[in-house]
Amino acid sequence: MKRIAILVSGRGSNFEAIARNIREGRLEAEIAAVVANNPEAKALDTARALGLRAILLPSKGVDSDTYAAQVVAALAPLSIDLLCLAGFMRRVGQPLLDAYAHRILNIHPSLLPSFPGLHVQQQALDYGVKFSGCTVHFVDSGLDTGPIVAQAAVPILDDDTADTLAARILVEEHRIFSEAIALVLSGRYRIDGRRVIRLDV
Amino acid sequence: MKRIAILVSGRGSNFEAIARNIREGRLEAEIAAVVANNPEAKALDTARALGLRAILLPSKGVDSDTYAAQVVAALAPLSIDLLCLAGFMRRVGQPLLDAYAHRILNIHPSLLPSFPGLHVQQQALDYGVKFSGCTVHFVDSGLDTGPIVAQAAVPILDDDTADTLAARILVEEHRIFSEAIALVLSGRYRIDGRRVIRLDV
Repeated sequence: MKRIAILVSGRGSNFEAIARNIREGRLEAEIAAVVANNPEAKALDTARALGLRAILLPSKGVDSDTYAAQVVAALAPLSIDLLCLAGFMRRVGQPLLDAYAHRILNIHPSLLPSFPGLHVQQQALDYGVKFSGCTVHFVDSGLDTGPIVAQAAVPILDDDTADTLAARILVEEHRIFSEAIALVLSGRYRIDGRRVIRLDV
Repeated sequence: MKRIAILVSGRGSNFEAIARNIREGRLEAEIAAVVANNPEAKALDTARALGLRAILLPSKGVDSDTYAAQVVAALAPLSIDLLCLAGFMRRVGQPLLDAYAHRILNIHPSLLPSFPGLHVQQQALDYGVKFSGCTVHFVDSGLDTGPIVAQAAVPILDDDTADTLAARILVEEHRIFSEAIALVLSGRYRIDGRRVIRLDV
């Protein structure tokens, strides 16, 4: 069974969706650890309630590379196949990128390359797009720039607020993140330039 | 009946779709002129075959503002309500923007703000997005930057080429351009910042 670690900063609804997809047989994987960088992260409680290993590694006042080295050290004994960033609000430092090259996925609530960074739904509303969505991508040293594994498109309605749009996108996040994890864990893809192409089974 | 002019540079498949939608009662408007900047534009023949006013105004060697002034002069007697750029491959000069403020629409084969400019489908394929689409937007002095009236999302398949993707997007272009024209001609919208919001009827 492939082993994943999930990095979170907050509520962790994507973590919960992954756990549920595993429990209900839609995703074959084992959550070996949930790592939070924030003592307030509700995901830590959820992880414990689910009987999962919950690791608090506070990042406050720690620079990105030092923090990344701490995460690498904490995960080293756990034989992690894939790292999943599920609302992890810290830049990923180089030691993590080196230790898990092409084995870190992030989920971002827009159709990248539109609207990278923060306040994503507000960016989309302010720009006036009629579709937004979400993106699962490999993490590289850029900001939301790595090769894209999966996307879903979501309509924007005239009366949307950042909150209503976020909720509509989240439904799709919960679906495509697990699909992307399954694909990457299966190894049945190749990366051609920036294109992630499924291999025929 | 509201009167539109269509500016084209080539085949003009979006022009043909608009003409068909009018003919078949899906769009209430009259095509008062088809203007081509290129003597080779097949759309000129199509316009003549449909009994429409076809105007050739070659743009070769003419700077954008001078050209725009020529278009303004050619259209002035025709009482045009809305200008529709349908594969018009020239920058729109200031005299046109001044004469038709908020009355020029363009169609672009991507989900803007992703992939403005040229070679759009190849840009999308090279970036590795899983969805692209098309955008109808008001034309301002930027490159594909004006407020968005309509968009449609289209999946990208692993075996897509720029041509197969362009064909799939074109189907949606033919639909949303007429829908956007109808909305703008109806006047039943407001622009809030960059957001084009439909008014309740």
